Amino acid sequence: MAPKVSPLAPAAFPDLPVIGGVRFASAAAGVRYRGRDDVMLAVLDPGTVMAGVFTRSATRSAAVLDCQDKIGGDGDQGAAIVVNSGNANTFTGRLGREAVEGVTTAVAGALALPQARVFTSSTGVIGEPMPWERITAQLGHLMAGLDAGGIAGAARAIMTTDTFPKGATATVTVAGREVRIAGIAKGSGMIAPDMATMLVYIFTDARITRAALQALVTEAAGRTFNCITVDSDTSTSDTVLVAATGASGADVTGDAGFAAALEGVMRDLALQVVRDGEGATKLIEVQVEGAGDDADARRVALSIANSPLVKTAVAGEDANWGRVVMAVGKSGARADRDLLAIRFGDIWLARDGQRVADYSEDAASAYMKGQELVIGVDLGLGTGRAVVWTCDLTHGYIDINADYRS
Amino acid sequence: MAPKVSPLAPAAFPDLPVIGGVRFASAAAGVRYRGRDDVMLAVLDPGTVMAGVFTRSATRSAAVLDCQDKIGGDGDQGAAIVVNSGNANTFTGRLGREAVEGVTTAVAGALALPQARVFTSSTGVIGEPMPWERITAQLGHLMAGLDAGGIAGAARAIMTTDTFPKGATATVTVAGREVRIAGIAKGSGMIAPDMATMLVYIFTDARITRAALQALVTEAAGRTFNCITVDSDTSTSDTVLVAATGASGADVTGDAGFAAALEGVMRDLALQVVRDGEGATKLIEVQVEGAGDDADARRVALSIANSPLVKTAVAGEDANWGRVVMAVGKSGARADRDLLAIRFGDIWLARDGQRVADYSEDAASAYMKGQELVIGVDLGLGTGRAVVWTCDLTHGYIDINADYRS
Repeated sequence: MAPKVSPLAPAAFPDLPVIGGVRFASAAAGVRYRGRDDVMLAVLDPGTVMAGVFTRSATRSAAVLDCQDKIGGDGDQGAAIVVNSGNANTFTGRLGREAVEGVTTAVAGALALPQARVFTSSTGVIGEPMPWERITAQLGHLMAGLDAGGIAGAARAIMTTDTFPKGATATVTVAGREVRIAGIAKGSGMIAPDMATMLVYIFTDARITRAALQALVTEAAGRTFNCITVDSDTSTSDTVLVAATGASGADVTGDAGFAAALEGVMRDLALQVVRDGEGATKLIEVQVEGAGDDADARRVALSIANSPLVKTAVAGEDANWGRVVMAVGKSGARADRDLLAIRFGDIWLARDGQRVADYSEDAASAYMKGQELVIGVDLGLGTGRAVVWTCDLTHGYIDINADYRS
Repeated sequence: MAPKVSPLAPAAFPDLPVIGGVRFASAAAGVRYRGRDDVMLAVLDPGTVMAGVFTRSATRSAAVLDCQDKIGGDGDQGAAIVVNSGNANTFTGRLGREAVEGVTTAVAGALALPQARVFTSSTGVIGEPMPWERITAQLGHLMAGLDAGGIAGAARAIMTTDTFPKGATATVTVAGREVRIAGIAKGSGMIAPDMATMLVYIFTDARITRAALQALVTEAAGRTFNCITVDSDTSTSDTVLVAATGASGADVTGDAGFAAALEGVMRDLALQVVRDGEGATKLIEVQVEGAGDDADARRVALSIANSPLVKTAVAGEDANWGRVVMAVGKSGARADRDLLAIRFGDIWLARDGQRVADYSEDAASAYMKGQELVIGVDLGLGTGRAVVWTCDLTHGYIDINADYRS
């Protein structure tokens, strides 16, 4: 089955700027897929600072554990990121560790880098030993192909069930100098906080300390990548790496404009993952306010966003707000039924624990025909708020997942 | 769309014995459905003891709140249970409370019972005001139709998206006397702990104190109704009521045989709800052992049972045990990847954190073609264990739920 491109996909892959200090290459190693690139390499110049956030799954992969060990390291020797699709190298025991060791050793050798500066990720099937020598066999080819303009090819090489490559960019001026940010992502199913089967690589020519970059990335991930869910299933491999090369010469430490631009790129990529949610036909933004605190708001928002009954109702363009009531009730958050208010877009359906007097099924149904929908809940208790993004649950999801491996 | 009967349905509705001290009637009140019974009345003789467990949803219905208020009351005046399908009378504010008041007042009046001994439940669409006068308009008809043998009709009257009526029975001998138990249930979607959109009514002619009966029911619900999930969506209306009329003359307080028989009936009804899970084609028993404690085992079991990716894999008869690894990892329970073992039925797929050496995809795939499957996980950490039941996630679920209200 050739997957059609998601109806929610952006019109085109964005025109990503060259980021000084980073070059890309991709290759067809045949890890699992045939006839397409499945490995990407990013090489970062000396002076690059790296930050990252990772899945908190108890069964996370050898590559994630390795990245977590390395990400806190300082040093200005440069760095490399090597990523394959087709095999997640997860739950592969000793062989999994050997694969990470094999790949990172080979890349470090080829680039004359310390192994501690080589980061690797793998995405695809879980539990099958990874034929990692197929990746290292492509190293010469990858080295020869390194190109400052190669980021779009890298975005395609890391795709699995994705129906479109994902990229986002921003440019800000800091102290009179242009600072560029360009990022790529993959992810489509097994998407839930924390982190989703989602791999994200963001590059910037900003100059910034490692600690400051890590703080920015951690905080922004809490409002972006950790606020999306496709199917409530959290992956073993989720990884976000952000590399700042410093090539622009502009120090962005403490610059609010840079922080906002970086978070904007992260949100853009996160939403592209939801837009490529397996089988998705609708993008849903769940806005919760009036909760006892932000944590309760998030609990309610995720309960709604993960509810199969809410998601199938949206798929059927059914303004079934009763299922939103149910999802609020089951969330575990503090809620008072008689204070609850619910809206779809700007159409209020219920207030004070019951249907509004001028309820119009026609208006609500017409709204549900849109492709981008807002489900709003006001708990009427306090000032806690949260926003979470998800997609609908359709026959397409079943089609894709009832026979993914075969 | 006329729903076909679930392929997992029992061959026939069981032959339920008459329980001394209880009579049933059902009627077509036209609350929402046309051309079928949608109200059932059960009338219990003086001396009856009642126990119950209820949803913990924060948005639970007026009827549930009313039952919870009343269930602790003692008294031997007799009792009544009146249940309608088609409208859940949930999130209906003041009107919802008025509906409960209206129905229980009318039934109490007709039966010369205190209102505190009239229990009501409603199941169906959420958020629409309930035309409760249609129910009370049928009271004369219901009173005239009361019949000790009417339990099968009652089981049919409470169905919503159910594809078959659900009943179970057991008989035990206590102190030389036969004690009978007969129960009915409805439930098919919005099924998750705590309690599911599930209504269960169990009748026995045992003699027992209220406190002893409540203790038995609470404990057994923890191992039966609170261990099933169809879609992780917890209902606002879940109710289990157990009535002991004492008509057998046999005092079962402290009798282990009765406790086991009651739990057996509860488990049977719980599994019938899963067998009627919306769109279900496979019954899945998730067995977790070796957890740090029972609570962690339950967390892992529910994480597996609620995972859309696990459930779609089962639907596709795909032995995708990697998704089980994922679900263990995301559960939040303590787990050590390198101690984890996974089996489907008796076929071990993974041990010590990796695929077993003699892994046979053919054997695993052949097993997945069965209709009743076991997913077993050994965490290798301690003695905690749990069993949870669920079903697969199919196109049928989407069909049913993408357009339920219309």
